[in-house]
Amino acid sequence: MLRISVLVLTLLTFSPLLPAAEQPSKPNLVVIFCDDLGYGDLACFGHPTIRTPHLDRMAAEGMKLTQFYSAAPVCTPSRAALMTGRLPVRSGMCSTKRRVLFPNSKGGLPQDEITIAEVFKSGGYATACIGKWHLGHLPQFLPTKHGFDTYFGIPYSNDMDRVAGAPRGRNAFWNPKVNYWNVPLMRDEKVVERPADQTTITKRYTNEAVKFIREKKNGRFFLYLAHSMPHVPLFASKDFLGTSRRGLYGDVIEEIDWSVGQVLDTLRDEGLAEKTLVFFCSDNGPWLIFNDHGGSAGLLRDGKGSTWDGGMREPTIAWWPGKIRAGSVSHQVASTMDIFATAQRLVGVEPPNDRTVDSFDLSPVLFSNGPSKRRLLFYYRGYNLMAVRKGPWKAHFMTQAAYGQQKPEQHDPPILYHLEHDPSETKNLADKHAEVIADIQKEVESHKRKLKPAPSQLEL
Amino acid sequence: MLRISVLVLTLLTFSPLLPAAEQPSKPNLVVIFCDDLGYGDLACFGHPTIRTPHLDRMAAEGMKLTQFYSAAPVCTPSRAALMTGRLPVRSGMCSTKRRVLFPNSKGGLPQDEITIAEVFKSGGYATACIGKWHLGHLPQFLPTKHGFDTYFGIPYSNDMDRVAGAPRGRNAFWNPKVNYWNVPLMRDEKVVERPADQTTITKRYTNEAVKFIREKKNGRFFLYLAHSMPHVPLFASKDFLGTSRRGLYGDVIEEIDWSVGQVLDTLRDEGLAEKTLVFFCSDNGPWLIFNDHGGSAGLLRDGKGSTWDGGMREPTIAWWPGKIRAGSVSHQVASTMDIFATAQRLVGVEPPNDRTVDSFDLSPVLFSNGPSKRRLLFYYRGYNLMAVRKGPWKAHFMTQAAYGQQKPEQHDPPILYHLEHDPSETKNLADKHAEVIADIQKEVESHKRKLKPAPSQLEL
Repeated sequence: MLRISVLVLTLLTFSPLLPAAEQPSKPNLVVIFCDDLGYGDLACFGHPTIRTPHLDRMAAEGMKLTQFYSAAPVCTPSRAALMTGRLPVRSGMCSTKRRVLFPNSKGGLPQDEITIAEVFKSGGYATACIGKWHLGHLPQFLPTKHGFDTYFGIPYSNDMDRVAGAPRGRNAFWNPKVNYWNVPLMRDEKVVERPADQTTITKRYTNEAVKFIREKKNGRFFLYLAHSMPHVPLFASKDFLGTSRRGLYGDVIEEIDWSVGQVLDTLRDEGLAEKTLVFFCSDNGPWLIFNDHGGSAGLLRDGKGSTWDGGMREPTIAWWPGKIRAGSVSHQVASTMDIFATAQRLVGVEPPNDRTVDSFDLSPVLFSNGPSKRRLLFYYRGYNLMAVRKGPWKAHFMTQAAYGQQKPEQHDPPILYHLEHDPSETKNLADKHAEVIADIQKEVESHKRKLKPAPSQLEL
Repeated sequence: MLRISVLVLTLLTFSPLLPAAEQPSKPNLVVIFCDDLGYGDLACFGHPTIRTPHLDRMAAEGMKLTQFYSAAPVCTPSRAALMTGRLPVRSGMCSTKRRVLFPNSKGGLPQDEITIAEVFKSGGYATACIGKWHLGHLPQFLPTKHGFDTYFGIPYSNDMDRVAGAPRGRNAFWNPKVNYWNVPLMRDEKVVERPADQTTITKRYTNEAVKFIREKKNGRFFLYLAHSMPHVPLFASKDFLGTSRRGLYGDVIEEIDWSVGQVLDTLRDEGLAEKTLVFFCSDNGPWLIFNDHGGSAGLLRDGKGSTWDGGMREPTIAWWPGKIRAGSVSHQVASTMDIFATAQRLVGVEPPNDRTVDSFDLSPVLFSNGPSKRRLLFYYRGYNLMAVRKGPWKAHFMTQAAYGQQKPEQHDPPILYHLEHDPSETKNLADKHAEVIADIQKEVESHKRKLKPAPSQLEL
């Protein structure tokens, strides 16, 4: 429908400079998603010793988003929100007891959730999920049951299924061997390798992605390329191992950077660059307890697992030559959940009207460097609403160290930070801005009044 | 001499594409130096809400140096080292009792020191110092006595000479008024305004710089443009006040960014871009005790006053179209002191042979993105050698909080960090790398054996 109307419009206005085939409607979408990448881990986001020339170029040709957030500080809820455009509490893809799904979990993303892959399917797109899924590994929860034509990847975290003989605790990670973790590698619904050879996992995901793009180049496609790295245990291929200044973590990031280069080069080579929107992001902040096997949140406070900004703000780049202005920077507050509504708009599909969606079309941000439609950002940890951002202000109702500390610390009144003046959350301004706190408290009441949390899938 | 040999070479090889006048020998040099700018304060070094489009462009057209250091964590010694290419202990421009020169100080940069301005004078260059000096405000120490043809600026820090009626302590800074600080503005050796109107200081420094470049465009010149900002008290002109997302500090940085754009645009407009090497750097890290009136060291630890990396590593950009490769990044360890030897080489002047110089020509780094000649980096606080970096390793023999803590904490054995794996200095690896410590200790012994500290000019 959208395609026809664009054609009609083109004929009516007789614009030979923009033939219908070049109209940027119904583009392809590629989402490249990392695992545990920190805000400060890319050269173009300030890392001093990790080299990311392909990501730097992607930013130079596209848009850097400096206040872009994942929807949760850990993997499963963050990915559920990316897929559905909804807060994880609405799908039950969170838990206050277990942070994520484990190999013995029985739950997964409920079938009645609408995924971004299903949005694209409804628009006639080919869809592929390559990489980490972590939204349920039992047959009924796999990507192929959620709108993806195909799947290739490790279905959960690469540090799960540790074998009995592997070193204990964190000792297994400092000099990791593939056979310490008996993780499966799946194609569609079958395990094709176990343990997955993680040393070549980034390379193989990349090759699959390139193959998919080439195969689907004459149609439209949605590719979700979710790297298993840089989640520990860290593995890099021979081409990258020992080559970075930043040690093994740097090797891994530089291989992901190479992978981004492969994907963008393929799009360029196939003449798809101006027909494809590419997002680069991650699921949550760096896993700081793993020393130099974890990344850096840059100037942000704390990391993975916490609702300080280092746990959820991500180094994000959007790329679409001809549509997104080269070298632009957006400071708008936005979320991985917003990719869902953006996809709907680009595909020309109506949003679902039978459920609450926490997603706001990013078109004004991406294509006009304009204001985000998102007014509020909720920082959840499991079912606990820990903090809320409104404009530049963030009020923490509860804080809790990412790991170790058993109980959250309550703040009444909440502690308050001005994130645009003080991105490191160092100076509590609660006593000077009671009116801001009152306003945010009203928003929270309204949010909670309407919220219907779903039962946890992670506790099944 | 150099010019003649280039001409001969050009004639011999008969290369019409590169006439002698276009050979990049004997370029102009512009050093733009900030005050208390943090490693994380530019967009191209990862700041999320400060906009620095001109500096980002400078980096995109030039080289980002990610492991570039000032020579001291506070102002006076840092600037003395920049001017002389020598550690401040050699000139006496440091003190363990008083960190910097104050309005009641009687000392200054000794006359027998050779400054970078004198290097350029010996090569027939016009020289100008615009901005903060802080190497002695008595007549015999002023820039015009140290190789600069002209001077225009505030001769010391903009927070000195506080008037009796101004608010006490840090209260004066949160809503600063020009007349709280009775700082002089000088032209050459005369005070021309007092108190200096700091609201227009960045703008006026910039206008002076542009004027100097235009006046000297047919000859060769060295311009040292040392902004008084973003040292507190923060002042921005009407054009910038209240315009940034980062508050007053952001306004100030964005005005400095504008200023950089003015300088580079002037060089481009006057056809001087390919004849001019421009450095952008700062004297020391951010003054963290000033809350959001201080900057951010990004992922580095601590700030101004400390010998953790946040106190001395600076966001550095070098620019010379045609000579420095556009969009390059150097991870080489280098120092503001190295600008001195680089200048000597470019001008074709021999290094002084009657004194120790701690300066290493940056040509291989800048023009070939090759290795730095610098093997060691010394972190001094006053006369105390606190830490030493060799390769990626940094050994702290003493640490001390930037402000407040009275006595340094001794470390024997020293604590050890791998700065390329762990730029935030979080994980002491001393127990695993005794051989590294032993090697650095030998370097320290050798350094100390040869060192002849000069008596302090700051205690006069």
